[in-house]
Amino acid sequence: MARINEHYLKLSAGYLFPEIGRRVARFQAEHPDARIIRLGIGDVVLPLPESVRAAMHRAIDELGHEETFRGYGPEQGYAFLREAIVREEFQSRGVSVTDDEIFVSDGSKCDSGNIQEIFDTSARIAVPDPVYPVYVDTNVMAGRTGAADSSGRYAGIVYLPCTEANGFTPAPPAEAVDLVYLCSPNNPTGAVLDRTALEGWIAYARATGAILLFDAAYVDYIQDDTLPHSIFELPGARECAIEFRSFSKSAGFTGVRCGYVVIPKDLRGRNAHGEPASIHALWSRRHSTKFNGASYPVQVGAAASFTAEGRAEVRERVTYYLENARIIREGLGAAGHGVFSGTHAPYLWMKTPGGQPSWQFFDTLLERAHVVGTPGSGFGACGEGYFRLSAFGKRDRIEEAVERIRKL
Amino acid sequence: MARINEHYLKLSAGYLFPEIGRRVARFQAEHPDARIIRLGIGDVVLPLPESVRAAMHRAIDELGHEETFRGYGPEQGYAFLREAIVREEFQSRGVSVTDDEIFVSDGSKCDSGNIQEIFDTSARIAVPDPVYPVYVDTNVMAGRTGAADSSGRYAGIVYLPCTEANGFTPAPPAEAVDLVYLCSPNNPTGAVLDRTALEGWIAYARATGAILLFDAAYVDYIQDDTLPHSIFELPGARECAIEFRSFSKSAGFTGVRCGYVVIPKDLRGRNAHGEPASIHALWSRRHSTKFNGASYPVQVGAAASFTAEGRAEVRERVTYYLENARIIREGLGAAGHGVFSGTHAPYLWMKTPGGQPSWQFFDTLLERAHVVGTPGSGFGACGEGYFRLSAFGKRDRIEEAVERIRKL
Repeated sequence: MARINEHYLKLSAGYLFPEIGRRVARFQAEHPDARIIRLGIGDVVLPLPESVRAAMHRAIDELGHEETFRGYGPEQGYAFLREAIVREEFQSRGVSVTDDEIFVSDGSKCDSGNIQEIFDTSARIAVPDPVYPVYVDTNVMAGRTGAADSSGRYAGIVYLPCTEANGFTPAPPAEAVDLVYLCSPNNPTGAVLDRTALEGWIAYARATGAILLFDAAYVDYIQDDTLPHSIFELPGARECAIEFRSFSKSAGFTGVRCGYVVIPKDLRGRNAHGEPASIHALWSRRHSTKFNGASYPVQVGAAASFTAEGRAEVRERVTYYLENARIIREGLGAAGHGVFSGTHAPYLWMKTPGGQPSWQFFDTLLERAHVVGTPGSGFGACGEGYFRLSAFGKRDRIEEAVERIRKL
Repeated sequence: MARINEHYLKLSAGYLFPEIGRRVARFQAEHPDARIIRLGIGDVVLPLPESVRAAMHRAIDELGHEETFRGYGPEQGYAFLREAIVREEFQSRGVSVTDDEIFVSDGSKCDSGNIQEIFDTSARIAVPDPVYPVYVDTNVMAGRTGAADSSGRYAGIVYLPCTEANGFTPAPPAEAVDLVYLCSPNNPTGAVLDRTALEGWIAYARATGAILLFDAAYVDYIQDDTLPHSIFELPGARECAIEFRSFSKSAGFTGVRCGYVVIPKDLRGRNAHGEPASIHALWSRRHSTKFNGASYPVQVGAAASFTAEGRAEVRERVTYYLENARIIREGLGAAGHGVFSGTHAPYLWMKTPGGQPSWQFFDTLLERAHVVGTPGSGFGACGEGYFRLSAFGKRDRIEEAVERIRKL
């Protein structure tokens, strides 16, 4: 029989969110009358912006006429979208990025999961702990780790603890690594890397030759304009960083699917002889060999989110979710819960009451308050004893969830 | 500096179609008045079916209301689409496949490129020669091969020659391999594997433990109802095969993006201890970790292609392209060219006049007839001396292309 990729068997559990889905489905089946409020998976609830829908309708109409039909598009994404991204997301903040450095995709999960493929299997990885599980899982699957220990930590990965003591801001490790995943605003802690923190990371990367994989999927939630929105706002980042962006949490594209990667042409890795090799060229080869471009109507919709109308609709949504975050933060804080973040992120990072294990609190909350959150330990060992609540929800449900948790 | 995946450097050239694009763009820039006819990349030209567009419009409208908004969908695809696939594509032909054996994706290129990840890097690969380049390239990138020789063949891959002598039908090799890519109707030769050929492959797979990766992206072009449309029509296939399907060439989804994989739950690989391991479970883990579901409006559109109206529109398109294929086949045949296939496939596989090298004929055709085709050698060493013409084109352009080639 064909030999399987044995590394998959090291994965300590199912991917986090399907596991939550299974527990919730089981509970709902056993308690059909329970009105469950889902603040687990970070999924938007407000309608897709009108400007985006109107653009997608137009794109679909175009596909209905021979004269305007389009088949395969450029694998890297249509120029109209890449140019809009450069203008609205980078030039507008004085960042120098060119449109051929943008690779449009069907979403950030794919991009942040696939990026490791263009690096050697021996590459040493560092990840914040806690963090979005895809970074670790995809490296486990690629064979860059040993087995997991009882806390879920894999041998060979350098974990960067994010704790209350360091303000949930990971510091560069003592040793050299090849790839560092950073997520800012962080999922799940909501912590934002400020200029000083990023300068430290860039200095580390340039001193050790590491590449920073900077996930900015939640950048639209940064409310302080003086905080960096792109790592490329900092000097030296073009020689050591890749950035990931998404339309999911800004324009509400979780079901529509669009994201992009920014890879500066200045970025170099090294081959076996120690000679420099263009990372942009490698990703371009991967992207054109394994991907056939994002859906055309989706790209047209994504571009519409950058029009004046689209920008206003995105801002309205972000404001709504951040107000939800404030309600949760203040409500639970007033009830004596230790709640962090929610200022520049749609997530609340809370301590579990009495230091309960995260999954135990998950079950308690589900069973007694009929509220679904995400166990902190699902994001890493340092997340044990913490819990993530998503601020993506309808206002009345958010308010009711806070009430139910307060009454526990 | 971070060490790159050195295997990428073994790739003998750029991915085939971008290379064609570059040569055509250069020629057009130098000859701005040339009316180029593109029969290179196999891209559809007829409008997206009305039933599909209507469904996509409805889906986008749904996303505009809080009550009907949908965010993240099931990674494996919505049940409405998976059930329609099972009913219309498999049960309708008496094939037993269940909806949880279907994994919906954003296209077959991703699926056939990613499938190798769930197998060991030591897996021995066999591929028809010539064939769709993604199978080989993605295995090169994963490190399953040595370097390429002067014909473009990689050390370590078992090539299955498809020649005029064997009717372009690959036979099982003498040695055991772990994974066999099969493509039927074949891209580029158009050859269809009949029942006897598939029985031979299934017997080989069951005897040696190989898994057959059966790419049926062009299944809708099979005009003979007695030919197998799915490998699962044959006894024993559920224990040794995976099938790939696409909406690209049937419903015109090359720019809209949707495909799917069928992985029977009976299918097993083996782990390092020789114990059986579920391939379905491995792919499920990969799919949910690295992919976030196909775009919702796209899935709704794909499902609409299975309605009575949608089926009729698909049939109309397939008939149109097959009539194009007949025109090319008969036109070039009458002019003395050796032309194969085009009966059950949208591709014509022709011998280059006078046995010219494929890329030389590509340049000749571009420069003297302003017609773009695809060099056979781009699909494998056995494709040298052959040329692929796509029947995806507007009728008048197809007729003109045939005239121009005849006059060469």
